[in-house]
Amino acid sequence: MEYGISFFPSVGPDDKPAPQYYDEAFQLAEKADELGFAYARAIEHYFCAYGGYSPDPITFLTAIAARTKNIRLITAATIPAFTHPIKLAGKLAMLDNISHGRLDVGFGRAFLPQEFEAFEIPLEESRRRFDEGVRACRLLLSQDEVEFSGEFHRFGPVRLLPKPVQQPCPPFYVAAASSAESYEKAGRDGYFLQTALAVSSLEKTQEMLRVYRQAWADGGHRPGAERIQISMPFFLADDDETARKAGEYDHHKTSSNMLEAVSEWQRVSSTQYVGYDKIAESVRRTSFDDLVAQNKILAGGPDTVRKQLEILAETLGDDLSIALVPHSGNLDPAVPTRALELFSESVLPKLSHS
Amino acid sequence: MEYGISFFPSVGPDDKPAPQYYDEAFQLAEKADELGFAYARAIEHYFCAYGGYSPDPITFLTAIAARTKNIRLITAATIPAFTHPIKLAGKLAMLDNISHGRLDVGFGRAFLPQEFEAFEIPLEESRRRFDEGVRACRLLLSQDEVEFSGEFHRFGPVRLLPKPVQQPCPPFYVAAASSAESYEKAGRDGYFLQTALAVSSLEKTQEMLRVYRQAWADGGHRPGAERIQISMPFFLADDDETARKAGEYDHHKTSSNMLEAVSEWQRVSSTQYVGYDKIAESVRRTSFDDLVAQNKILAGGPDTVRKQLEILAETLGDDLSIALVPHSGNLDPAVPTRALELFSESVLPKLSHS
Repeated sequence: MEYGISFFPSVGPDDKPAPQYYDEAFQLAEKADELGFAYARAIEHYFCAYGGYSPDPITFLTAIAARTKNIRLITAATIPAFTHPIKLAGKLAMLDNISHGRLDVGFGRAFLPQEFEAFEIPLEESRRRFDEGVRACRLLLSQDEVEFSGEFHRFGPVRLLPKPVQQPCPPFYVAAASSAESYEKAGRDGYFLQTALAVSSLEKTQEMLRVYRQAWADGGHRPGAERIQISMPFFLADDDETARKAGEYDHHKTSSNMLEAVSEWQRVSSTQYVGYDKIAESVRRTSFDDLVAQNKILAGGPDTVRKQLEILAETLGDDLSIALVPHSGNLDPAVPTRALELFSESVLPKLSHS
Repeated sequence: MEYGISFFPSVGPDDKPAPQYYDEAFQLAEKADELGFAYARAIEHYFCAYGGYSPDPITFLTAIAARTKNIRLITAATIPAFTHPIKLAGKLAMLDNISHGRLDVGFGRAFLPQEFEAFEIPLEESRRRFDEGVRACRLLLSQDEVEFSGEFHRFGPVRLLPKPVQQPCPPFYVAAASSAESYEKAGRDGYFLQTALAVSSLEKTQEMLRVYRQAWADGGHRPGAERIQISMPFFLADDDETARKAGEYDHHKTSSNMLEAVSEWQRVSSTQYVGYDKIAESVRRTSFDDLVAQNKILAGGPDTVRKQLEILAETLGDDLSIALVPHSGNLDPAVPTRALELFSESVLPKLSHS
């Protein structure tokens, strides 16, 4: 198992001024770097408290790159549909160089109707734009000269500058949520996988990961070389009660923000996003206690969290990478800072699979 | 007079690996921050040694923001035609927050045919896209809720997150080169100005700045509040000979790279870029010595450079801001580092207008 941290801000101007949020996040990233966590991730969302403080994960990670030495930097995810591939590949290559080769790129399709609407991209084009964007970035980053002809973009011959440090190309992840098609395609195409547990049952996730691993093998990719990164809300404190109290408060805030963000799905429907109108109900129906009991949220003292991680390893595989989400911005930054310390001191050394 | 530094990389993979160039540039920016220079600027170009190491000035400046305390961060320029305004405004707002309000935004039209071609933007739309992009960014950064309907983009109502630290909006500059229309419009609209001396005679620049200042006053903007930023190649050493030798070598490299970049103008013409087919000839015709003699390149020991700056102040106004371009990447970084030190120690204290 491997552990990193993931920044998913869930605060707006009424909750916490943005400069303060960034300061806290970057200090936490420095802490994670010192403690030996494998990576820091950042997301891409717009307009709402749900992620809106990070409309550009590359900008977010560049600030972290400049203040850290070893930690890897992972977009989780960046959305090719919203940026021209030459621009996106250029920024990614800059970050790979600025960080001396510490970039992993996670790509996502995006799923909020208001984001597609603002960028004037039809939801129905989501998967095609995603596929084309990932393909274009791969070519731009890995080949010396690229001539590209897709459905949405046509350019070249051009030579991307700078070339990435990692040759031929930084590792690529793709984000998958609930559609088997996404898992199957990610495996077949030889991409690493980013997912979250929140929306599915553990059994469903188990099945989806099996689909991914099988497709990876069927695609002729080196068995065992696949990587699966799962993000999880993370509330670790010296004792169970303190952790759960903090987690419950934070969960209440982040769920409300998520509900606000997905409310557009009550107005819109798309064949590309089947069942997304049900997300809100599912979020409302599931309590913090349920989610902890189902091991979809890590919350407790060191022993409790260790046991949760052991169950995850047994259920989903002991080669997982867990992206701990320690700081939505709603808690005092001392809480996630202590959580990272405790994880290093009291959880990691005792994990049976570490 | 005010002094900052400007990063215009003019190296490719055969000259200097990109990670090394960034390390050198960021160390130089830290040095400039310590020495009290007013700002660090970064450019946006693609594909060629001419600027291609900086396809995203916001990424470049974010790395500098994370490593400095006081220096302002200025795009010079970012190109709205190549990025969706929601994406561009979001990145700019992030940088303003990450830097605690140290951002100035310079916008440019771009002028290399191969860049427009790659982004599939007709050269003829250049000015309209520029105007619309600047207007959209202004609204997104300064208003709580924006509904936008332009020729190229239509969105909203949306609320940009994060809001910038500088309220209502970070300062805006626009880049102008040789067209009187650009200077006139910048002044009338109340934008600050970024320009360079390289392409025009000092007399022509004098006239253009007069046009700008007059349009500023005519536009009803506070007299004397206009700002003019002029970028200049900068070779300062302990003595004239050392400085000129370094400058001559660097100029040879950067001119060749520029000639390669503008060579497309021999193939293309546009009513929006009249006379651009003549740039190459003008670059070829003008020697390093000519440019120093005309005070378009700063090169020499402290006394020589001081005299050059005094002539510029007398000719163009003593309220100028000079963006010194110290490091194209072609010289040993000790050379520009020494140049910044010498400027602080031996030029600035003796300038009659400082």
